Amino acid sequence: MKERCPSNTAVIKGISEAFLAMPQKIIAGVDIGGTKMAVVLSSAPPQVFARVAFPTRTEWKPECVIAEIIRTLKELLEKHGLTYSDIEAIGVSCGSPLDPVRGIIQTPPNLPTWVDVPICELLTNEFHAPCYLENDANAGALAEFHFGAGRATRNFIFLTMGTGLGAGFVLDGRLYRGTTYSAGEVGHVRLTPTGPLGYGKHGSVEGWASGGGIGLLAEERVREAIAHGVGTKLAAVLQTHSRVTAKDVADAMAAGDALATELMGIAGEKLGETIAILVDLLNPECVAIGGLALRLGDTVLAPARAVVQRECLPPSAAACRIIPAQLGESIGDVAALCIALEGKRQASSA
Amino acid sequence: MKERCPSNTAVIKGISEAFLAMPQKIIAGVDIGGTKMAVVLSSAPPQVFARVAFPTRTEWKPECVIAEIIRTLKELLEKHGLTYSDIEAIGVSCGSPLDPVRGIIQTPPNLPTWVDVPICELLTNEFHAPCYLENDANAGALAEFHFGAGRATRNFIFLTMGTGLGAGFVLDGRLYRGTTYSAGEVGHVRLTPTGPLGYGKHGSVEGWASGGGIGLLAEERVREAIAHGVGTKLAAVLQTHSRVTAKDVADAMAAGDALATELMGIAGEKLGETIAILVDLLNPECVAIGGLALRLGDTVLAPARAVVQRECLPPSAAACRIIPAQLGESIGDVAALCIALEGKRQASSA
Repeated sequence: MKERCPSNTAVIKGISEAFLAMPQKIIAGVDIGGTKMAVVLSSAPPQVFARVAFPTRTEWKPECVIAEIIRTLKELLEKHGLTYSDIEAIGVSCGSPLDPVRGIIQTPPNLPTWVDVPICELLTNEFHAPCYLENDANAGALAEFHFGAGRATRNFIFLTMGTGLGAGFVLDGRLYRGTTYSAGEVGHVRLTPTGPLGYGKHGSVEGWASGGGIGLLAEERVREAIAHGVGTKLAAVLQTHSRVTAKDVADAMAAGDALATELMGIAGEKLGETIAILVDLLNPECVAIGGLALRLGDTVLAPARAVVQRECLPPSAAACRIIPAQLGESIGDVAALCIALEGKRQASSA
Repeated sequence: MKERCPSNTAVIKGISEAFLAMPQKIIAGVDIGGTKMAVVLSSAPPQVFARVAFPTRTEWKPECVIAEIIRTLKELLEKHGLTYSDIEAIGVSCGSPLDPVRGIIQTPPNLPTWVDVPICELLTNEFHAPCYLENDANAGALAEFHFGAGRATRNFIFLTMGTGLGAGFVLDGRLYRGTTYSAGEVGHVRLTPTGPLGYGKHGSVEGWASGGGIGLLAEERVREAIAHGVGTKLAAVLQTHSRVTAKDVADAMAAGDALATELMGIAGEKLGETIAILVDLLNPECVAIGGLALRLGDTVLAPARAVVQRECLPPSAAACRIIPAQLGESIGDVAALCIALEGKRQASSA
């Protein structure tokens, strides 16, 4: 099978070597995203001493992608004079839905050819090390909880604002996964009876407050603006690219465009309504927001905080900081490592 | 001080003696409600072998109410040939807000004269046994989790539909209290921008789906019906009593009244929207609903279940049973006992 898989080596984008020290036992992290993947090694998370990132070949069969992951991890080990026996644990981060207990990636929408891929079994068979799997939102929550915005908290919520809007909950210091590992599906919660489409629902949190939702709402409003002869920089974007993204809206807002500013205000307000629900229900100490919110900053966080102050029970609002996530671009790497650490912790406490 | 407190003995309502066996060590439970209180003894929760209930004297100073609780518990012990040293732990259930860690009842709206009452210290000083305090929704959740609708589940949500709408969350088998012990304030979550008033917010869950909210909405709709000459049995209720309660609406619905049926349908729909949020966020195995829902049954539960099926992610909806609470009238007693059991568990695992 392996020889039928094409090579991705030519498109390897970069290797970062933060540490050259050769540890006895190391943690491997694999971050499987819809557009890129990364394989990292660490002897002291969150630091990474070796890293390879490459584009996700969504057109490949999953066995070929996994063969590429295995080849990459083997090369990283060899390059650092390490062997399979140096690996203490492997953590794999991937989009939902997945089964973290059986280590199976089910049917992630961003990997359309992947159906019930037993990634942990495949990696454990190769490397003879325990492998743990977690969805990217939960893994990001663990990463920020241990090493970022959630440090020194007990009850922490991580929101990731990308194409969609995902969440991970750390409650009483433990990752909360839910009965079918589907806790934290904030993006699917309805905010309004109708509204922008997100996660298959008009008026959902993902429709109102994700990158995808912001883009869709922008397209609708730009068409209206064009029809009514209202000027907006986004008109040219829509006419040139036939679509508008959240990044386009952010750029237009930065350039002083009134409609773009209004659209981001709406997203901030709806993000606030979402966080208000979480604050009244879960009374967290901190809600940290990653992804798009890092770039948008107070453009969305300031209105979101105002909504929480207005909507929530005062003691719960006062107890909760609403801040940007802190791990920035490294969150995927740290998240994958944290999955391995959490897996080890659970295995030792079981 | 004690002699200035009036006696409540004359209004003691009843003593139930389920068990006559005299155990070595017993658990005492104190359920402090806005209209009635109960003191119970148990050697094998959820069974109670002795119980005294009496009306809550909201006009009394809290020290007098607590003196009455102490006197009642002493009399129960004496009656069963027990002494202070037979008490292993005391559990106290009361309305929020309270501080379960310091054992202080803060400012419960249904006990207007109570401000920062250190009930656990007072009971421990008298009986020389550890005393634990929890809010009634959390205590009810523990009771249903251990002995009722939540048995054999891992992730369980208890909703109590009374004058308000409260919730308690048991997640991964543990009561989740939140950062300032305010988790589960479901009643405060907004469902609509405007709507019936509940928990100080128009359009809140408590406005739409609590006993109080149903009554307020009924009054508004009955006034409209009278103004428009639309017939409803509730018109006579409003004219006689100047108000309409959820019980009146249930009675009128049972008698075939169209408006009452419509009002209960709305409450069921809004209860469903509330549960849908909880299911997508917390992916519970079971949501059990006590209080008014026990009487209303499928009148509200059937529309609520339909909303959850329509609104939630299919695997999360499929994983979650939405059922009536099972402990019925005994929930207050069992809840108070469960607080003591949970306190013992936490003390032993600390």
